[in-house]
Amino acid sequence: MAVRALWFRGGALHLIDQRALPGRRTVLRLTRVEEVADAIRTMAVRGAPAIGVAAAYGMVLAARGGRSTPERAAALLRSTRPTAHDLFVGIETVRSVWAAGGDPRAAADEYRDRVVEECHRIGEAGARLFASRERVLTHCNAGALATVEWGTALAPLYVARERGAKLFVWVDETRPLLQGARLTAWELARERIPHAVIADNAAGHFLATGQVDAVIVGADRIARNGDFANKIGTYEKAVVAHENRVPFYVAAPWSTFDLRARTGAAIPVEERAESEVLAVGAQRLTPRASRARNPAFDVTPARFVSRFVTPAGVVAPRRLSAWLDRHHPGRARRP
Amino acid sequence: MAVRALWFRGGALHLIDQRALPGRRTVLRLTRVEEVADAIRTMAVRGAPAIGVAAAYGMVLAARGGRSTPERAAALLRSTRPTAHDLFVGIETVRSVWAAGGDPRAAADEYRDRVVEECHRIGEAGARLFASRERVLTHCNAGALATVEWGTALAPLYVARERGAKLFVWVDETRPLLQGARLTAWELARERIPHAVIADNAAGHFLATGQVDAVIVGADRIARNGDFANKIGTYEKAVVAHENRVPFYVAAPWSTFDLRARTGAAIPVEERAESEVLAVGAQRLTPRASRARNPAFDVTPARFVSRFVTPAGVVAPRRLSAWLDRHHPGRARRP
Repeated sequence: MAVRALWFRGGALHLIDQRALPGRRTVLRLTRVEEVADAIRTMAVRGAPAIGVAAAYGMVLAARGGRSTPERAAALLRSTRPTAHDLFVGIETVRSVWAAGGDPRAAADEYRDRVVEECHRIGEAGARLFASRERVLTHCNAGALATVEWGTALAPLYVARERGAKLFVWVDETRPLLQGARLTAWELARERIPHAVIADNAAGHFLATGQVDAVIVGADRIARNGDFANKIGTYEKAVVAHENRVPFYVAAPWSTFDLRARTGAAIPVEERAESEVLAVGAQRLTPRASRARNPAFDVTPARFVSRFVTPAGVVAPRRLSAWLDRHHPGRARRP
Repeated sequence: MAVRALWFRGGALHLIDQRALPGRRTVLRLTRVEEVADAIRTMAVRGAPAIGVAAAYGMVLAARGGRSTPERAAALLRSTRPTAHDLFVGIETVRSVWAAGGDPRAAADEYRDRVVEECHRIGEAGARLFASRERVLTHCNAGALATVEWGTALAPLYVARERGAKLFVWVDETRPLLQGARLTAWELARERIPHAVIADNAAGHFLATGQVDAVIVGADRIARNGDFANKIGTYEKAVVAHENRVPFYVAAPWSTFDLRARTGAAIPVEERAESEVLAVGAQRLTPRASRARNPAFDVTPARFVSRFVTPAGVVAPRRLSAWLDRHHPGRARRP
């Protein structure tokens, strides 16, 4: 896999500015925790696992800067976005080491390595789901850009493709910020995987007319019972897939699972600026007098999920809680 | 109602160029049938009832031009778009009069008057559905711009509002061509009806969280059994509304009902150019290597419809066929 979303080198966090893709590949070089917080808030870096790793390195930069404390740096980074659970795991992993006098950089590197390795394992575990399922729908971007390498939802597709599966991917454009049209399409084009971008509105048509064999998405936070938050629109796709008996998969590393959230009701949903809906780039779409609402995520009940693809394998929603008790690295710490 | 989508005067069909809204209100003046065909094909005029009336006047222009025949002019206009049934009714209404030596202009005027009057009756009949339903979701534009005056889906809201209902409208932006963000928002802003534009993806979130009391849409073609075609994405909204037990209404004049289509399987779905998905205006969204698919409509099964709002009143899907036999002006002609 050639795409890496971010890397730490020479005392700086480098990340691909995802706002500029696919038009330009620009790398931001961040040396202060405030810059990392801004990059997360403005979605220069996005995708739950990726912002967890970016925030972990933000903590490293805060520790090196010498003018912050573990608690203050953590509070700043936590305030950037509320929904993705990985963000809080990445911050806490480094905060606890820093506060205990350990090496923040080593903690962040280890956290990043764990995320990358878990994405590899998600790819291996999920690939068998696509051996005979050729036409796959995905929503938003849960590829290398959303993680560090490989991705969550896209990792099984990349592995299945290496193993010889002939895939075709339906890419929801994913308004308002078009992570599908801009980022997933960019990754798939680089990997030369055949795909077609569609208006989010068109997914139902292709599901209902037998042109989709499976749906796979990532997640921003998964509750114990399998309810999960993901990019706005995921819920609609899940309901319509269920209506048409098309399997619906959710792929995520351990950091996305919130062991303290019993159900989806415990997941906070971020609402972002109206301007993301009222315009595309500099182009105003609506009348001046019109307002907009812009929830960035929705919560999909577990009953619409066929299987979760985790680093320890594939599991049905009804077995998820026991699975987490057995496999999740944070299981001993749950309340 | 101040908005008129089109009018015939001084030997020319005038219509608001809907591609330029909401930024500019430009009126096109068309004097040849070929210009009318282009305006329909390129969606300068759109909305099933409106393109039916535009095509009727296209026939008038062909008759006046003296270089066409009823059959050739009708064939040209029929070739513009395949899905909206009203188009074919508008063409046929004038063609039959012209071919019989009658007055095409009188036939077109009468057809237009009938559409306008039916929209008024839809408004009157449907208004009671919204007396106590304040938060209404709509998809695409089924207002004055889509008809001639008043609209289909929006007519009941305009009448309910006049009668004192306090309404709030959720406006799906309706990618790819943004008829919601551009046209419905423009109409509602003119009428000072409170509304919020949302990404199409967000409708499910608002439906699932109890923030939508009813959904109402127009239609491009309705089969005898109540299956209907409408703007792409309508099917998803209908499925998700049904899942959340939110009433889903479809409003249409008689010209939208295709008495010869037994079910939705008989409705042809137009696929439009990739470029509508790959870009917004001049702004390319996707990588150069990416392709797109662009079905302009989808077909929603009748079981997801709570009620049809027709010029003769409100009717449940299971009673639709008998209702058409009783009220539809074309009932005697059905095979």
